Amino acid sequence: MTQNTAEKTPVTLLGLGAMGTALARTWLAAGHPLTVWNRTPARAAALAAEGARVADSAAAAVAANPLIIVCLLGDASVEEVLAGTDLARRDLVNLTTSTPARARARAEWARQRGARYLDGGIMAVPPMIGLPEAGGYVFYSGSPELFERHRETLAVPAGTTYVGEDASFAALHDVALLSAMYGMFAGAAHAFALIRKEDIDPAALAPLLADWLVAMAPAVHQTADQLRSGDYTKGVVSSLAMQVAGTPTFLNTAEQQGVSPELLSPYFELMRRRLAEGSGEEDLTGVIDLLVR
Amino acid sequence: MTQNTAEKTPVTLLGLGAMGTALARTWLAAGHPLTVWNRTPARAAALAAEGARVADSAAAAVAANPLIIVCLLGDASVEEVLAGTDLARRDLVNLTTSTPARARARAEWARQRGARYLDGGIMAVPPMIGLPEAGGYVFYSGSPELFERHRETLAVPAGTTYVGEDASFAALHDVALLSAMYGMFAGAAHAFALIRKEDIDPAALAPLLADWLVAMAPAVHQTADQLRSGDYTKGVVSSLAMQVAGTPTFLNTAEQQGVSPELLSPYFELMRRRLAEGSGEEDLTGVIDLLVR
Ligand SMILES: NC(=O)c1ccc[n+]([C@@H]2O[C@H](COP(=O)([O-])OP(=O)(O)OC[C@H]3O[C@@H](n4cnc5c(N)ncnc54)[C@H](OP(=O)(O)O)[C@@H]3O)[C@@H](O)[C@H]2O)c1
Ligand SMILES: NC(=O)c1ccc[n+]([C@@H]2O[C@H](COP(=O)([O-])OP(=O)(O)OC[C@H]3O[C@@H](n4cnc5c(N)ncnc54)[C@H](OP(=O)(O)O)[C@@H]3O)[C@@H](O)[C@H]2O)c1
Repeated sequence: MTQNTAEKTPVTLLGLGAMGTALARTWLAAGHPLTVWNRTPARAAALAAEGARVADSAAAAVAANPLIIVCLLGDASVEEVLAGTDLARRDLVNLTTSTPARARARAEWARQRGARYLDGGIMAVPPMIGLPEAGGYVFYSGSPELFERHRETLAVPAGTTYVGEDASFAALHDVALLSAMYGMFAGAAHAFALIRKEDIDPAALAPLLADWLVAMAPAVHQTADQLRSGDYTKGVVSSLAMQVAGTPTFLNTAEQQGVSPELLSPYFELMRRRLAEGSGEEDLTGVIDLLVR
Repeated sequence: MTQNTAEKTPVTLLGLGAMGTALARTWLAAGHPLTVWNRTPARAAALAAEGARVADSAAAAVAANPLIIVCLLGDASVEEVLAGTDLARRDLVNLTTSTPARARARAEWARQRGARYLDGGIMAVPPMIGLPEAGGYVFYSGSPELFERHRETLAVPAGTTYVGEDASFAALHDVALLSAMYGMFAGAAHAFALIRKEDIDPAALAPLLADWLVAMAPAVHQTADQLRSGDYTKGVVSSLAMQVAGTPTFLNTAEQQGVSPELLSPYFELMRRRLAEGSGEEDLTGVIDLLVR
């Protein structure tokens, strides 16, 4: 395979942790000239052998190329590392995990320093980077010009999903999806706990559980429709009243199996509160309103 | 389509609520002679017009056929309805939702009355009954002879999944899967709450959320492997320590978006407790041990 590296956008990457290193390898493999910097220089050695240029300082790395990718531990390390660099006329893409508020503040901070800014939220673990079939991708938000200009370069390590000009939106989408995943993991933990003392192989439950969760996940489309219309009774199959009536079965079963209800009961409690407001004919969507202050 | 009803196993069905009625229609459509009974007789009228025989009493319905299907509100109504019937030499299939403990007791109760017993847990809502492509199915546990004998008849309304001779296992599997689903719904509710005050269309978030949950659901296979081996560090990609370190991002984001953390924090709290036990290198699986008393 011949690669004309001259045609590929040169990239500067700050941060060679597990994620930064995985990202770096994909740009090298795709023939992008790559300049790297890491606080602990030893972590750059293997990449240097694979063709990366290693900068002596973050400032030198930023000076080397117009496109700067940052993948550090957290926003505090971004502040520290970028403090001594000249960001004027740079395209700064920050893949460091952050809260939406910090991402928005970082965008304004970058703007004041003369940089265009794009924030990223990585929906993948390092082994998924560079493997499109693994389904990982990165949420991007912030400068649409930056995103358009570097679209192809950004697409090298993983799929890209641009979610808006507000720089906080990538982090918000990232946190929203991972929060939902933790809810699903909590539910699965409860399910495995229920069978723990029985003669049931967890590996026999797992495919049933996975298939069921996959089958039920599309329910979020109906939730979205109901949130948009404000009509939480639209298309209801199992009403809130029916579902609240069913909750003792779940709580009694947990008790009988010696399983703490702590991961289930907060949701059931919100269902009961919503029902008490006279919303028995609704779907479960009203719980969302109770969460927002 | 010609149907030779003489060849099909006759079925007695007690209970014509939303679910019972849906079940009834599939056996009629498949050419099974069907005898029905419902406390409120009016609910049987439409089915009578479609070819069902309507019994005057539960006792008469039970006397009519060897195979008895029960689909009532809860175990108390099963007790009430079957009290005055002669169950000797009947094949009793109870599709009424129950706790595992109640199902086990009901099996013993039926055995004492000379009936074979199969308990069922319906993983479907009425609109999915009779539509194999909708993916609904019924967990069965209890008498393997009964299940084998009536396998084809039971497969008419929905797929069948036999999970063991212990009559409580169908209910346990049912509750386990639905509990996990509520966890997933709780997580999705939190996700929708996070974007509630932003200019983000819930219908734009929904497909991202659904795809992400579908992509993450197979993580339960690794959980099962770890539970079987007892080694919770097997195949870990994101360690418990890393994930606990990330929790402030989730809690701070919730706070910034004005969203109560009540649906997420119990799981995070268990993650922290497990980490405090010195399990930082593990996956999230150790949380399950903390749930079981
Ligand atoms: N790993 C994942 O599964 C994953 C998934 C999605 C998103 N992310 C995000 O990607 C980012 C990087 O994660 P990672 O897994 O690569 O983390 P990591 O392996 O712990 O690496 C952390 C990186 O940050 C650097 N760093 C930390 N504090 C610093 C400071 N004060 N000054 C300069 N450099 C500092 C480290 O440099 P040294 O080498 O000198 O310590 C290292 O390069 C994080 O924001 C993470 O949330 C990771
Ligand atoms: N619907 C679902 O989405 C769904 C999904 C999975 C499992 N299930 C389970 O299926 C079973 C039936 O549900 P369903 O949706 O059909 O409920 P339903 O529409 O509320 O019907 C309840 C049925 O139980 C009867 N009943 C209640 N108490 C009785 C009593 N004391 N004596 C005699 N009959 C009594 C009712 O008779 P009357 O007509 O005289 O009131 C009616 O036939 C339940 O165990 C439910 O958990 C339902």
